[in-house]
Amino acid sequence: MSNVHTTSDKTEEIRRAIVEAVTAVKATHPMVPSITNTITINLVANAQLAVGGSAAMVYLPDEAEALALMGGAFYVNVGGLLPIYEETLPHVARVLHEHAKPWVLDPVAVGIGRLRTAALSQFKLYKPSVIRGNASEIIALAGLWQLDGEDASRVRGVDSVDSVTSATVAAVALARWTGGAVAVSGETDLVTDGTVVVRSFGGSHFMTKITGAGCSLGGVTAVYATASGPFIAALTGTAVYNLAGRRAGARSEAPAQFQTEFLNELYQASAEDIADNPFEIEEVLS
Amino acid sequence: MSNVHTTSDKTEEIRRAIVEAVTAVKATHPMVPSITNTITINLVANAQLAVGGSAAMVYLPDEAEALALMGGAFYVNVGGLLPIYEETLPHVARVLHEHAKPWVLDPVAVGIGRLRTAALSQFKLYKPSVIRGNASEIIALAGLWQLDGEDASRVRGVDSVDSVTSATVAAVALARWTGGAVAVSGETDLVTDGTVVVRSFGGSHFMTKITGAGCSLGGVTAVYATASGPFIAALTGTAVYNLAGRRAGARSEAPAQFQTEFLNELYQASAEDIADNPFEIEEVLS
Amino acid sequence: MSNVHTTSDKTEEIRRAIVEAVTAVKATHPMVPSITNTITINLVANAQLAVGGSAAMVYLPDEAEALALMGGAFYVNVGGLLPIYEETLPHVARVLHEHAKPWVLDPVAVGIGRLRTAALSQFKLYKPSVIRGNASEIIALAGLWQLDGEDASRVRGVDSVDSVTSATVAAVALARWTGGAVAVSGETDLVTDGTVVVRSFGGSHFMTKITGAGCSLGGVTAVYATASGPFIAALTGTAVYNLAGRRAGARSEAPAQFQTEFLNELYQASAEDIADNPFEIEEVLS
Repeated sequence: MSNVHTTSDKTEEIRRAIVEAVTAVKATHPMVPSITNTITINLVANAQLAVGGSAAMVYLPDEAEALALMGGAFYVNVGGLLPIYEETLPHVARVLHEHAKPWVLDPVAVGIGRLRTAALSQFKLYKPSVIRGNASEIIALAGLWQLDGEDASRVRGVDSVDSVTSATVAAVALARWTGGAVAVSGETDLVTDGTVVVRSFGGSHFMTKITGAGCSLGGVTAVYATASGPFIAALTGTAVYNLAGRRAGARSEAPAQFQTEFLNELYQASAEDIADNPFEIEEVLS
Repeated sequence: MSNVHTTSDKTEEIRRAIVEAVTAVKATHPMVPSITNTITINLVANAQLAVGGSAAMVYLPDEAEALALMGGAFYVNVGGLLPIYEETLPHVARVLHEHAKPWVLDPVAVGIGRLRTAALSQFKLYKPSVIRGNASEIIALAGLWQLDGEDASRVRGVDSVDSVTSATVAAVALARWTGGAVAVSGETDLVTDGTVVVRSFGGSHFMTKITGAGCSLGGVTAVYATASGPFIAALTGTAVYNLAGRRAGARSEAPAQFQTEFLNELYQASAEDIADNPFEIEEVLS
Repeated sequence: MSNVHTTSDKTEEIRRAIVEAVTAVKATHPMVPSITNTITINLVANAQLAVGGSAAMVYLPDEAEALALMGGAFYVNVGGLLPIYEETLPHVARVLHEHAKPWVLDPVAVGIGRLRTAALSQFKLYKPSVIRGNASEIIALAGLWQLDGEDASRVRGVDSVDSVTSATVAAVALARWTGGAVAVSGETDLVTDGTVVVRSFGGSHFMTKITGAGCSLGGVTAVYATASGPFIAALTGTAVYNLAGRRAGARSEAPAQFQTEFLNELYQASAEDIADNPFEIEEVLS
């Protein structure tokens, strides 16, 4: 059970951990490979570079394996699938799981297509450290993994019915299954490790007017996963996106301007500013 | 036969239809899937978002079919072909044709390569609602489809020999075959439904100094094809590109600045401003 | 043996040749096809357009062959390999070699993956006109081609131990094998034809904070290879990147702003300014 005192302690603990993750990334420039779609691949790489990471994108199974073993974390985004992914995706997921490498999954468009369904189904066993998606994707993935019927969680204090909060049960169920974290993107973002749910505030309406805000958040979250556990990585990625989005949005009148300003803000955001981006913590009643 | 009076009526009819198409897109954010090349795929998506649409890009046959059935229109661009397109392109074109879904074809680099020639030949039967290309592509596609020997059209009032007007006969022949519209991009753009030819004015020389102005115009035209017939969709896409290009070009000294300004102007252009972008109508003598 | 007089003559000769190459490209807009990775493909094309060239990217063997025969030079970048490249890469390299077409190779991530190793090994016989990479890639490629054991060169006046200079022996060995040029990118760039080593100054630390500075330099070098020999093409590409990078960096506070400014500066750089970008010449003792 939480109270004001423990929540305040938890808030400070989270802020310190965010500062540590951001500082470590800026100091070490960790290489984080990705398998990601061709639509937003350039933005994913530039966002990873902007926060201090280093990017490498691959398609082939043996290259994915080699980079998975070299990198501190890995990003898998199933948008825009190519035929070779039928081999690459399950192979790299197995390698990552066997070597206990943290990896971030973005289950883009779950439900469409045989290959995507097969790959996402297989991923249940390989337990991605962080799953990041919009509310529909998180609900659909929990359904695909048959976690939605488990009724394993109730969330205290969630009474609105907006789409992000409607994904809370699914997000908690997924996090409990993987033992990692789940991030749900929307007007207010939600991050959970299965025991607490954090709501993170900020962003801009322009983030839906450019392609790749979500994809690149997944890539950035994987960068932070080299320097912290899944929950803090997901929170840090969400926080820097909300911070940079709010700052860039305040100066922008149109989407292309916003994208430039947003990447600049990702680069300029300090560890302290990211940690101070507003969030609220709620415990999950099991 | 046209005269000042009927041309003026037609002009007003077109303007009203453009206002309706733009307004409907901004209100409903229609999802328009694409099969398009990796070079300009990001710009296509961002341009579709900027005018109010929603983007989804795919490679695999079953994903293309699923999205074709979900979307209000589809965009096919044959630049940068990948091997899987040998299956995907004819499959999705057949699905679109059978379900009477409007689709826009950009016959990039028609004439190069076995797969491209085979796919573009097959498309003759599946009758793309709008064909958009530069003059050489339109002439070459009419030749590939053996429409250029039909001598089915003469265009009144076309006396210049610039490359766009040199494609007028081919454009009219293609439009008559498909029963849709054809848009030819160049210094002055041409749009025809086989009965009238509209010349649309504006743009910027910087549009040839960035990659993807043509590709993204095809994607934007497909967005408007969810909200109007092929002729108005082609005209609306051409008009917003000429408007945004002229506005962005007036403020730009170099291409990267132009691309940012251009996407911003696509986003900010009002339905009335797009409809008021200058154009001239000529009837085709059959 | 060089002295002040001959070095000064050589400097002026190089400057005149750079002016000629840049001027010819701006006048003729040469089409330069590429096989390159999906991560930075858009930046490669836009950089080629910015300096005055024309871009065309392909994946399939027969398209690559057709464009190789049409183009004045070709760019091959082995980042982000797709399965079809197993056929395309050796095929196009053989065609280019047999038709004596200049081509630029960027051996991205040499050492990772079976397909990349096989392709890069085969390229030894097809002698790319220009090889462009970072120091590690140049050293690794010389190793893969077993040129590093030849001890064929010593470089006078190179006494620092930074990574670029550490690749000097490998770069000279590669250039002597191909009979072309090698460019090594780093804080100070190095270009050699196997007889002289030129160090080119400029750039910006932001070039490592955006993805594709190196890839697009390869593409731009291929544009200049249509209008000059490999050594001048490599020098001209390196010079315009150092010039535009320094100018853009001076006005930029963050990476996305830098990328826009950089492309703008590529477009605006005059032939004389590019030729005047600082460089130093050293002869290689054989």
